[in-house]
Amino acid sequence: MHQIDVGSSILAHNDALAMHNREHFIEEGVYVLNLMSGPGAGKTTILEQTVRALSGKYRIAVIEGDVQTSQDADRVAAAGAPVIQINTGGACHLDARQIHDNLHTFALDALDLLIIENVGNLVCPAEFDLGEHDKVMVLSTTEGADKPSKYPVMFHEARAMLLNKIDLLPYLDFDTEKALRDARALNLDLDIFQVSARTGAGMEGWYAWLEQRIAKVRASR
Amino acid sequence: MHQIDVGSSILAHNDALAMHNREHFIEEGVYVLNLMSGPGAGKTTILEQTVRALSGKYRIAVIEGDVQTSQDADRVAAAGAPVIQINTGGACHLDARQIHDNLHTFALDALDLLIIENVGNLVCPAEFDLGEHDKVMVLSTTEGADKPSKYPVMFHEARAMLLNKIDLLPYLDFDTEKALRDARALNLDLDIFQVSARTGAGMEGWYAWLEQRIAKVRASR
Repeated sequence: MHQIDVGSSILAHNDALAMHNREHFIEEGVYVLNLMSGPGAGKTTILEQTVRALSGKYRIAVIEGDVQTSQDADRVAAAGAPVIQINTGGACHLDARQIHDNLHTFALDALDLLIIENVGNLVCPAEFDLGEHDKVMVLSTTEGADKPSKYPVMFHEARAMLLNKIDLLPYLDFDTEKALRDARALNLDLDIFQVSARTGAGMEGWYAWLEQRIAKVRASR
Repeated sequence: MHQIDVGSSILAHNDALAMHNREHFIEEGVYVLNLMSGPGAGKTTILEQTVRALSGKYRIAVIEGDVQTSQDADRVAAAGAPVIQINTGGACHLDARQIHDNLHTFALDALDLLIIENVGNLVCPAEFDLGEHDKVMVLSTTEGADKPSKYPVMFHEARAMLLNKIDLLPYLDFDTEKALRDARALNLDLDIFQVSARTGAGMEGWYAWLEQRIAKVRASR
């Protein structure tokens, strides 16, 4: 039982720090999004496209979480947003402490949107609050339609989901209806966008959603 | 540190059981609501009125959590819903285990709506997932407008909030605008209903919201 206790103590401590981060975000009026998925679902490509589409209108920054390497950070920086890279050094998720320690790198009050790209993992990131306004997840069609029932916490915690790689649907057995039904059963308010970050299909709906969330943060000040 | 470890281990274990409860609720197609507030905010009166208003149209049951006594359960039963009473024996919140152990008392698949009235407490209940679809909180005008900043977790976790006892506003210094603004800053999607359960003012909006949630559960099956 000892290991469980240690892990859970970390979790409780994390929640307190996450609420502290949240108070910073509220005070500075920046909308913060925690982007999560399994490995290779397309988070970074979605992020690149999102930065390209919205950086003319909003002040955007990105925190890149990776177990190792800075390849994703380099791609996002090339798309035009300032990036902080956090290497977790083996850990399977970001935690509130890592976000907290990097908060003062950006002038938060000069940002409209801060996107945190979490480590590619469908389990652990869902359990660690970072203080974000919304968790958003990416499921890709190539991963299979059984994922909501296998990873219910992630689907329950997310505010929105991008179903990515819809351009590959003709070549797959992916049961879109089942995947979306199971996801919505776990999460009555899940907003779902069917997209291909590669072709750009469906991305306009996702951008419009982000703009609404940024406007909500502004309206709540 | 030992006490923190024990408490947190309970929390992690609770989350796993809560997800198990959630799977039951999804399978049986019953919408489940976890009703929370500080002591005396009016949960039971809201519950009595809600049962009276909706029991002609929906099959409703109630789980009553109380530190001691069954007074609330008696009131709700008199309003016309089957009730299970859970006495926590001193504990300041319900947990997923207590809900799980009572699930088979009701025929879940014969219910449309299961309301769990939590122990009156603005802190602990917010941290214990019971497997509900939605946490709903009650704030009463007599408690003061500083509550969102003092109890951010509760306001962050709730899907909807009833601001109760609005009939007393003329006799109080309650700053409604500040309370609602601070609550919405913590929770971009918080649906808020300004009501008086005693006079019935504003309750129609709350009932309509409940009906929408029940319909969403049905649609997701």
